[in-house]
Amino acid sequence: MTQVSHPVFNFSAGPAVLPKEVLQQAAAEMLDWHGSGMSVMEMSHRGPEFISIYEQAELDLRELLAVPANYRILFMQGGGLGQNAIVPLNLAGRAPQQPATVDFVQTGSWSSKSIKEARRYVNVNVAASSEANGFTAVPPQSEWKLTPGAAYLHVCTNETIDGVEFNFAPSVQGDVPVVADMSSHILSRRIDVSKYGVIFAGAQKNIGPAGLTLVIVRDDLLDAALPICPGVFNWRAVMEADSMLNTPPTYAIYIAGLVFAHLKKLGGVAEMERRNIEKARLLYAALDADDFYKNRVAPEYRSRMNVPFYLRDESLNDKFLAGAKARGLLQLKGHKSVGGMRASIYNAMPIEGVQALVDYLNEFAGR
Amino acid sequence: MTQVSHPVFNFSAGPAVLPKEVLQQAAAEMLDWHGSGMSVMEMSHRGPEFISIYEQAELDLRELLAVPANYRILFMQGGGLGQNAIVPLNLAGRAPQQPATVDFVQTGSWSSKSIKEARRYVNVNVAASSEANGFTAVPPQSEWKLTPGAAYLHVCTNETIDGVEFNFAPSVQGDVPVVADMSSHILSRRIDVSKYGVIFAGAQKNIGPAGLTLVIVRDDLLDAALPICPGVFNWRAVMEADSMLNTPPTYAIYIAGLVFAHLKKLGGVAEMERRNIEKARLLYAALDADDFYKNRVAPEYRSRMNVPFYLRDESLNDKFLAGAKARGLLQLKGHKSVGGMRASIYNAMPIEGVQALVDYLNEFAGR
Repeated sequence: MTQVSHPVFNFSAGPAVLPKEVLQQAAAEMLDWHGSGMSVMEMSHRGPEFISIYEQAELDLRELLAVPANYRILFMQGGGLGQNAIVPLNLAGRAPQQPATVDFVQTGSWSSKSIKEARRYVNVNVAASSEANGFTAVPPQSEWKLTPGAAYLHVCTNETIDGVEFNFAPSVQGDVPVVADMSSHILSRRIDVSKYGVIFAGAQKNIGPAGLTLVIVRDDLLDAALPICPGVFNWRAVMEADSMLNTPPTYAIYIAGLVFAHLKKLGGVAEMERRNIEKARLLYAALDADDFYKNRVAPEYRSRMNVPFYLRDESLNDKFLAGAKARGLLQLKGHKSVGGMRASIYNAMPIEGVQALVDYLNEFAGR
Repeated sequence: MTQVSHPVFNFSAGPAVLPKEVLQQAAAEMLDWHGSGMSVMEMSHRGPEFISIYEQAELDLRELLAVPANYRILFMQGGGLGQNAIVPLNLAGRAPQQPATVDFVQTGSWSSKSIKEARRYVNVNVAASSEANGFTAVPPQSEWKLTPGAAYLHVCTNETIDGVEFNFAPSVQGDVPVVADMSSHILSRRIDVSKYGVIFAGAQKNIGPAGLTLVIVRDDLLDAALPICPGVFNWRAVMEADSMLNTPPTYAIYIAGLVFAHLKKLGGVAEMERRNIEKARLLYAALDADDFYKNRVAPEYRSRMNVPFYLRDESLNDKFLAGAKARGLLQLKGHKSVGGMRASIYNAMPIEGVQALVDYLNEFAGR
């Protein structure tokens, strides 16, 4: 167990740090929400109290992301991994003949998982891949081998494990919707929702607690589900039931709503983007200062959210992590599949946390 | 909005009342769990802190339900409605030829939903149904028309909307596992897990917050999934990943763990059963005192958890509900599909709440 007596900075890739103000409000309201005598956890999802929480959360999210009126916001369960099946189950019916063909751009671990799962339901065309170069870049769009009339194109716009982030919205010829897994960078930068057909995101990075999955889907993409799609994961059915086809993860939606309100108060997504650029610059500069540390990602595709790095001398890894922990810099160990270190610096990571990490990086490197 | 200045009793069918001690502990630990400097919501699901929470929750649940060693406990997402698809997707492969045949006993709204969803994947045989009598009883087992060699038999052992509860464990000839949806009465009475192949339950009644689904599955039933089963809902894959194939709903698991520990402190499931029998007797006696109120369920199948009832004069419904609310007796309106009233009296409803409701029933009836 970690035992610390001073404030900590938690660099977990997710579930991840949440705004302190949000946690304070949640604690204060735990036993009695707004004089109702009930915890939000105890409320019927169909009662006026929870409906008001739900509607405000949806409204605030719509405002934060400037979601156009012809897009629906769904609150679902099953995480990003669940959507890896749920997306093809909902969109494969767009193809005149089954199995449908779907294009993927493979940029890291998460898009690779999406490819693997989609193969249960569709023909997968890997239109482009950076696997051969160790997932250190987004393949240039000019080299993508897209399928005319594909059911959709799938991209993961921020690879949490590999630290690779799209710096552009894909543009596709014809009527091929772009599906984007934005789990680990949604709300961290401005996006043009209209460039996408579907955006999905597990909540446990920039939104709120694990167990909530956000899906933003364009109206015309709600009617292409395969008959084998479970009813509870059918986007149209979920939409028509206002995300209450089954009991939604009410408490997670409540916390997400508090996060959305908090982001609005801070200045919205544009302000978060400004802060995230600043935090990322600070951290990458420390990693690039000499060759003591190394981040392998091409600079133009480096993630502002997930910063994997390696020590030149990997025999120092344990010492590095122990020293970090002693300073309250937590959960810096890299994903087991790639090793090394990783600092996730989501919206709720203050610049003070990044500065504390940079100070430690410099100290440990003997600078 | 409800605005009350005194303690309330919340009769919601789910999400439902939680033990006050659990909410108090959750509030106290919200910003700093056990000196870790982190909220449970912020913890990596793979870190030692959350792993300890998860393992203790599983251990306590195993003890509370006396789960035999050859059964696995899975913490999933998607609710009971999700399992309506996930169960056939995981068990239909038991049949030598597809589509498999599955037996159902139809005793109310929830088993009816399970039947509807299963038809996507299997041949449904409704072995028995009480639909013709308005779902007011469990059909006697002697009349069930079971299929020899069925992939499984599905029952809903407590119908939340109809207030019908099994008072026996089904017994089946040969190698046909019994799948039981125990969403709304799990942990409320002693059960013999070994009589079932699979038990599942949405958490939001007797376990914890909505968004967590409990699945207890016998070892030999982990290898019969159809190829179209989404990976994230494949029981074996979930089991092998210790319910962390994707990020589990960590905070909901934490709250469930607090509930389990609380139940153990109170004396476990046997003690809850004793209390629930007492609460149910008290409430049904008041409903049966004269014909001012009516519960239509055959006495031997009346649910101890969900008590639907009707006023003889239904024009008084609004007045009844308004008076109840003024006394802090909340969420007594019946499900929209059946009308009338419903009092859900789960584990966390104290007998004082039932007594307050009984007092009001008597007062309103002019007794």
